[in-house]
Amino acid sequence: MIKLSEYSTEPDKDLSKEEAEELRLKELERIEELQIRLFAGKKKSLLIVLQGVDASGKDGTVKKLFSALNPLGCTCKAWKAPTQEELSHDFLWRIHKELPGKGWIQIFNRSHYEDILVPFVYESLSKDRLKDRLEFIDSFEEFVSEENHTHILKFFLHISQEEQIKRIEERLSNPEKNWKFDPSDLEAHKNFKKYQNAYEWIFSHSKESFPWVIVPSDKKWYRDYLIAKSVRKELEDMDLKYPKLEVQPAQI
Amino acid sequence: MIKLSEYSTEPDKDLSKEEAEELRLKELERIEELQIRLFAGKKKSLLIVLQGVDASGKDGTVKKLFSALNPLGCTCKAWKAPTQEELSHDFLWRIHKELPGKGWIQIFNRSHYEDILVPFVYESLSKDRLKDRLEFIDSFEEFVSEENHTHILKFFLHISQEEQIKRIEERLSNPEKNWKFDPSDLEAHKNFKKYQNAYEWIFSHSKESFPWVIVPSDKKWYRDYLIAKSVRKELEDMDLKYPKLEVQPAQI
Repeated sequence: MIKLSEYSTEPDKDLSKEEAEELRLKELERIEELQIRLFAGKKKSLLIVLQGVDASGKDGTVKKLFSALNPLGCTCKAWKAPTQEELSHDFLWRIHKELPGKGWIQIFNRSHYEDILVPFVYESLSKDRLKDRLEFIDSFEEFVSEENHTHILKFFLHISQEEQIKRIEERLSNPEKNWKFDPSDLEAHKNFKKYQNAYEWIFSHSKESFPWVIVPSDKKWYRDYLIAKSVRKELEDMDLKYPKLEVQPAQI
Repeated sequence: MIKLSEYSTEPDKDLSKEEAEELRLKELERIEELQIRLFAGKKKSLLIVLQGVDASGKDGTVKKLFSALNPLGCTCKAWKAPTQEELSHDFLWRIHKELPGKGWIQIFNRSHYEDILVPFVYESLSKDRLKDRLEFIDSFEEFVSEENHTHILKFFLHISQEEQIKRIEERLSNPEKNWKFDPSDLEAHKNFKKYQNAYEWIFSHSKESFPWVIVPSDKKWYRDYLIAKSVRKELEDMDLKYPKLEVQPAQI
């Protein structure tokens, strides 16, 4: 079993904030180039999944990442509680619709993993049913990867309980952050340990096909740097090429 | 390996057309009752898949079946060649969106199985890739069955090559049926044997979870009776109950 307590939430001590910021900007520059190739080639796609407890920095990560991405080929979907219509279907019904088409990057702020996390924490489904769900998710992810060449990057924004308290308090005290506060934050905070357990269970039982990246996220600058680096690496691995011109320029 | 040549395309000799018609109307009456329960209960759903070579009678089956079904809780989706947007996604992307929500019956005129049949006939995908597709379909069907209590009925309308020729000729000679004729009918007719092989391969390699019903379809009256009977039986097996009133009528 993976134990999150064994994973640091703090940055690598050998890297300063200034250095990380410089490196991050370089990563973003490269991501910008690679995204154009992805979009032009229309052969593959990238799904970025962001998960983490409340106040772990999902919104902030999206904002920072988007600064390098052309919205022409990139969208973000923030998942909320399902609607009545969504509830009348299986939990992957609404997810499948929002997967990226060829050439696109899609960012999921929360995801289909909420459909394991929430019933895990509130014990509304048996462990057997949760195991089934996880297997279906594994098979679903393998399917879109094989059939549509969708690469999947899954980030867990790992923060300490102390950091979570600090951020929730800031949402309460800072008028510019008040809007981010939701009474459910307190409920989520109360369940911090249960959510950690749920994540540990998911990480330990998922197939290795698309491993989770556990991102030390107490410091935003370190989190943003690490995620930019992973995204750049994944795009690099996709071996993206511009399509060949099908006409002879000289003939035009 | 299942051999379609071993399956008759002709009706059971012990049943006359008149008897079948009488029985079919009784089945439809019962289907009508059961569909209201399904819709009222909102716990389960039914997906009816119709497959068969060109002119095997898919449209006619839909028309006959619909006469018993309330469109309030039943829709039909006829699948055509995929659009540009659909092609930019995996082949189940457009299918998943059209699955029935709880309480609903959805009829597929053609289906996700075309994504195996066509590449099988035109040899555009390797057998390994086709096997993968079939496994993904199996897992997809199991998933919606388990997660959303969707029952799946799959019918193969089995006609002889002679009957197909007769029906295509009628589309050419009868002005009221001209509109059904498409030059691709001739192509499909030329490939009759290849399509039979593709179906045999699918039937032989599919999991047993949702077995195909091979319907002798040279006579429309027999086909319509058998399908009505299967649909009624499936709805019967779903053990559909009206939901309990949550208020006391006396208090209203």
